[in-house]
Amino acid sequence: MSTVNIEQEIYPDGKTAADFADWKPADVRKLIREGQITGQTSGMCDGYAQANLVVLPRELAYDFLLFAQRNPRSCPLLEVSDAGSRQLHDIADHADIARDIPKYRIYENGKMTGEYTDVSGFWRDDFVSFLIGCSFSFEGELLSADVPVRQIEEHCNVPMYNTNIPCSSAGVFHGNMVVSMRPIPHELIPKAVLVTGAMPKVHGAPVQIGDPEVIGIADLAHPDYGDMVTVRPGEVPVFWPCGVTPQAVVMASKPSFCITHSPGHMFLTDVKNVNLKY
Amino acid sequence: MSTVNIEQEIYPDGKTAADFADWKPADVRKLIREGQITGQTSGMCDGYAQANLVVLPRELAYDFLLFAQRNPRSCPLLEVSDAGSRQLHDIADHADIARDIPKYRIYENGKMTGEYTDVSGFWRDDFVSFLIGCSFSFEGELLSADVPVRQIEEHCNVPMYNTNIPCSSAGVFHGNMVVSMRPIPHELIPKAVLVTGAMPKVHGAPVQIGDPEVIGIADLAHPDYGDMVTVRPGEVPVFWPCGVTPQAVVMASKPSFCITHSPGHMFLTDVKNVNLKY
Repeated sequence: MSTVNIEQEIYPDGKTAADFADWKPADVRKLIREGQITGQTSGMCDGYAQANLVVLPRELAYDFLLFAQRNPRSCPLLEVSDAGSRQLHDIADHADIARDIPKYRIYENGKMTGEYTDVSGFWRDDFVSFLIGCSFSFEGELLSADVPVRQIEEHCNVPMYNTNIPCSSAGVFHGNMVVSMRPIPHELIPKAVLVTGAMPKVHGAPVQIGDPEVIGIADLAHPDYGDMVTVRPGEVPVFWPCGVTPQAVVMASKPSFCITHSPGHMFLTDVKNVNLKY
Repeated sequence: MSTVNIEQEIYPDGKTAADFADWKPADVRKLIREGQITGQTSGMCDGYAQANLVVLPRELAYDFLLFAQRNPRSCPLLEVSDAGSRQLHDIADHADIARDIPKYRIYENGKMTGEYTDVSGFWRDDFVSFLIGCSFSFEGELLSADVPVRQIEEHCNVPMYNTNIPCSSAGVFHGNMVVSMRPIPHELIPKAVLVTGAMPKVHGAPVQIGDPEVIGIADLAHPDYGDMVTVRPGEVPVFWPCGVTPQAVVMASKPSFCITHSPGHMFLTDVKNVNLKY
């Protein structure tokens, strides 16, 4: 189990993530597994879905699965592994969930205790992996439909906010929804709703359009996670359910042991985004 | 706990199920709870979703929840109760899941041991209720869109078939998909696909159009469940994932104790069918 410097973002041959846009996910997963890539995955494997990871012991897996069933907007499950298995059935062939993500986080009793490029040494027979849809998928569709995605234009992370929108509780898991924000020109909002609404497995339609205070966001300029982006005249802040919700909820419940991906360092699936619509 | 004759179909004041088409679900649930209705629910509470029921002990609930997550087409969950609770949070207010269905079945070790109008006397603190979407919801949409639904025209049950389409296994639960069949005129098939495809929470789009042998149906004229309907010249048999799948799969795994609704005797939810689209 290798520990890495949090700042360390390795790509082979002086490449960047964007240089892997045309690669197949299986080929990039192989480089990640070999330790040749430890950097973030945004822009890799154009057209393919990327996934959030939450790994929990089996004793908490029912509560988390039920939480996901009750909160499909913020926690859309793409796959749940068999207990103990590091393989997946549906969304990736010949993957090793303990080695195929560039950077993992380990949380003990709700506190992060380290980042790793390989968590196979921590693996236990009672671990269940939850792969959760990521908004990277609908951002590709928005761009294809000529709807701007500001944080991609500005080369930064999407702004994310805690809200007052309660999730439905399940067992030990409870908390409020986290949302991501994208500024959308007025006239393109209907198109943005339709494009994302057609993809419920990657968060779907917005939860709120244009009134951050109503959902408990007091200061739009200072997101709770990620980076602020420019909101231009004629644009409206549009809020989508965010994949940080399940991680925030899991952390708040302080499980004794939990593995997640490190933000931005996602699992590359073999599933095309377009197939998440059907 | 009252045992009823399987043939007994009681409605108050000489009414039939269709006479409750304009009633609110909560009002019909009250009559059911009082024992004034023990008959089937097709045609009741026009525009509102009805649900299949599977009740399992908590020790099997994780496997079944995982089975549903892996097989959303045949097993679309509308709600999962808290363990031991007879109430629901989302799809019905002030419901009692042990008394609000007109007729229940109890299975012990995979065999049906009785039908009951009230299962509150059997209730245990470890029971989890799974409410599963029902094709009644998309049939209303098909009729609104002028697509014929033959078994409604012919006042019989929809024909259902075992197939060779494997479900994804989860723990103790495994088996093949059961499908329902509706004959659709050639020119209306695209509309039927779009109408039902927009409602993934009630089985969604067809799984097969026009070739029963490919999915293991050798004799279309003799369905495995329900009644045969007329297939007219110019019509094609169209097959949808069926809510009998989870029941068949549960029965095959022979849990020590399981409660289901009796076929056709569904749980009336407060959810409008149109809201299952969003």
